[in-house]
Amino acid sequence: MTEQTAPPFYLDCDTGIDDALALGYMLASPEADLIGIGTVSGNVSAADGARNTLDLLELAGHSGIPVALGAHDPQAGSFGGGAPHVHGRNGVGDVELPASKAELAPETAAELLIRLAHENPGRLRVLAVGPLTNIAEALRLEPELPRLVEDITIMGGAALAPGNITTVAEANIANDPEAAADVFAAEWNVTLVPLDVTMTNVLEESQRQELLSEEHPFPKALGDMLGYYFQFYLNQFGRACSALHDPLAAAIAVGGIQVDTAPVVHVEVDATSGPGRGQTICDMRGRYMGYPEQPGARCRVVLSLAEEFPPHLVDTLRSGWAQSGREPEELALAAG
Amino acid sequence: MTEQTAPPFYLDCDTGIDDALALGYMLASPEADLIGIGTVSGNVSAADGARNTLDLLELAGHSGIPVALGAHDPQAGSFGGGAPHVHGRNGVGDVELPASKAELAPETAAELLIRLAHENPGRLRVLAVGPLTNIAEALRLEPELPRLVEDITIMGGAALAPGNITTVAEANIANDPEAAADVFAAEWNVTLVPLDVTMTNVLEESQRQELLSEEHPFPKALGDMLGYYFQFYLNQFGRACSALHDPLAAAIAVGGIQVDTAPVVHVEVDATSGPGRGQTICDMRGRYMGYPEQPGARCRVVLSLAEEFPPHLVDTLRSGWAQSGREPEELALAAG
Repeated sequence: MTEQTAPPFYLDCDTGIDDALALGYMLASPEADLIGIGTVSGNVSAADGARNTLDLLELAGHSGIPVALGAHDPQAGSFGGGAPHVHGRNGVGDVELPASKAELAPETAAELLIRLAHENPGRLRVLAVGPLTNIAEALRLEPELPRLVEDITIMGGAALAPGNITTVAEANIANDPEAAADVFAAEWNVTLVPLDVTMTNVLEESQRQELLSEEHPFPKALGDMLGYYFQFYLNQFGRACSALHDPLAAAIAVGGIQVDTAPVVHVEVDATSGPGRGQTICDMRGRYMGYPEQPGARCRVVLSLAEEFPPHLVDTLRSGWAQSGREPEELALAAG
Repeated sequence: MTEQTAPPFYLDCDTGIDDALALGYMLASPEADLIGIGTVSGNVSAADGARNTLDLLELAGHSGIPVALGAHDPQAGSFGGGAPHVHGRNGVGDVELPASKAELAPETAAELLIRLAHENPGRLRVLAVGPLTNIAEALRLEPELPRLVEDITIMGGAALAPGNITTVAEANIANDPEAAADVFAAEWNVTLVPLDVTMTNVLEESQRQELLSEEHPFPKALGDMLGYYFQFYLNQFGRACSALHDPLAAAIAVGGIQVDTAPVVHVEVDATSGPGRGQTICDMRGRYMGYPEQPGARCRVVLSLAEEFPPHLVDTLRSGWAQSGREPEELALAAG
């Protein structure tokens, strides 16, 4: 499939180490045409996430893709400072990326999403791997958005798995439950990639070494960042490895990896101030009957994969850089 | 083990078909000395549950065990009418039990529990298989209760499984979340037997037939009731069979069945008015590390069993009626 026929994607992210992996996957995959990116506060501030995104695009040789700054604060309250213990002080594992000279797009993330949806009516696909603040804002600004876009894939939440930021809540959803509630209530087709499947498909040290062994500075930088990420997951898994939240959502959105159990069910977000705040309440009561159809449900919740994800991710991230705008040697020079 | 050395048990129930199975298990097991029963509104009203309990005790030849009427209404709101679609209009699958002439105890269920705790300091064990209204009331009336009883085993909630009365809530907890919150906050050792394990250990029709084939009217009556219960579960499992909520909690409390995965974790009850109301929020975040110790946690949450439960349940319910106060022939006559 050529870039012309690949579906256009808008990516909303809070870059972030696993956001960087998702970005790399979208750039490397021939099945996706990434035409715009918005950032939101989450792993880092929206501004730091935009800076990281611009630098990563430059390093990958894709500096022409517009990056728009999105919301700094969630709908309720204010940005809590991110997760430096997971993603490093700079959000990319304290790896120093060569600074891009590219400028931010002259519109907000929500405005960029809406513009791209109008320019690609019925074709634009949305991949959201951060808090859903920008997406909810776009829904408010353009109520027709659900009919303008093809679908939305969201990394977030937990269906039958434990949470990661509270007992039952996952970080992306918990960072802005009100926005998430709006997004899940909108009338569009959602694919949710929750902790159930992102915590059970794990990248190992040998696979990180494959990225580090690449000559191109982009996959090498991803391997470097993962060193920091692996340290955080040492306490989660008992060994140096990592979950693959955002890149798995990217691969499922793009169709690069096939899902196994993925029922379409009703999903509601707990936006109370109680102990369940930020939980994605997915109606999995049909599990004992093989998940019969739920009339009116629009959210496909991915619980398991039909194939191994980590090797596919590594293969994809090692390829795809030959067609970049700049030569690897030039990029290596810039990176030095 | 003789009845004298078996630990004394107080049973709190809302009888109910699976409560009847749990009652039968406690009576038949040589490992438990059932010395008092309180009833609470849940599957049926507290009064109907008490009537069913008295009738079942009479049929089993154990009419000397005191039965105390407990709370009709939960802490917030009022009794919703029970679950006749699950348990039949009379609560025992519309099976007509011979009416007991025994009277209710002259105290409330909470008062009975407190009296028995004082009479058996440090020894009394509590098995609660209905909403936790009576247990919470007893905690209010006697703050020393957690130190007076050995432990409490609760059938209720869901840890990593779907709910059964709402998306995330199980009926016993959802029928009185405020009471449940009090019970899980008290400083005692709790064993929680949630839907995770009660929905995955299922009684089949052939096993129901074994109960029906008994000459003693008590196990025969249980087999009859299960016919009604099986019809409800047809829509849950796609075949005539049933979950085994309350009897599994009884068997685990008594030690008649060994558990496999059962981490001791923090548990909080959602008592908000949000979509998670009634959920048992169990901290299962340690699952990827084999559930490391959680300092201060007191609730053992049973997720899987080390052995098959249904055959053990049927064997136990088919035995143990020889030592009853009345002869089987006499009981059969009364039942006729």
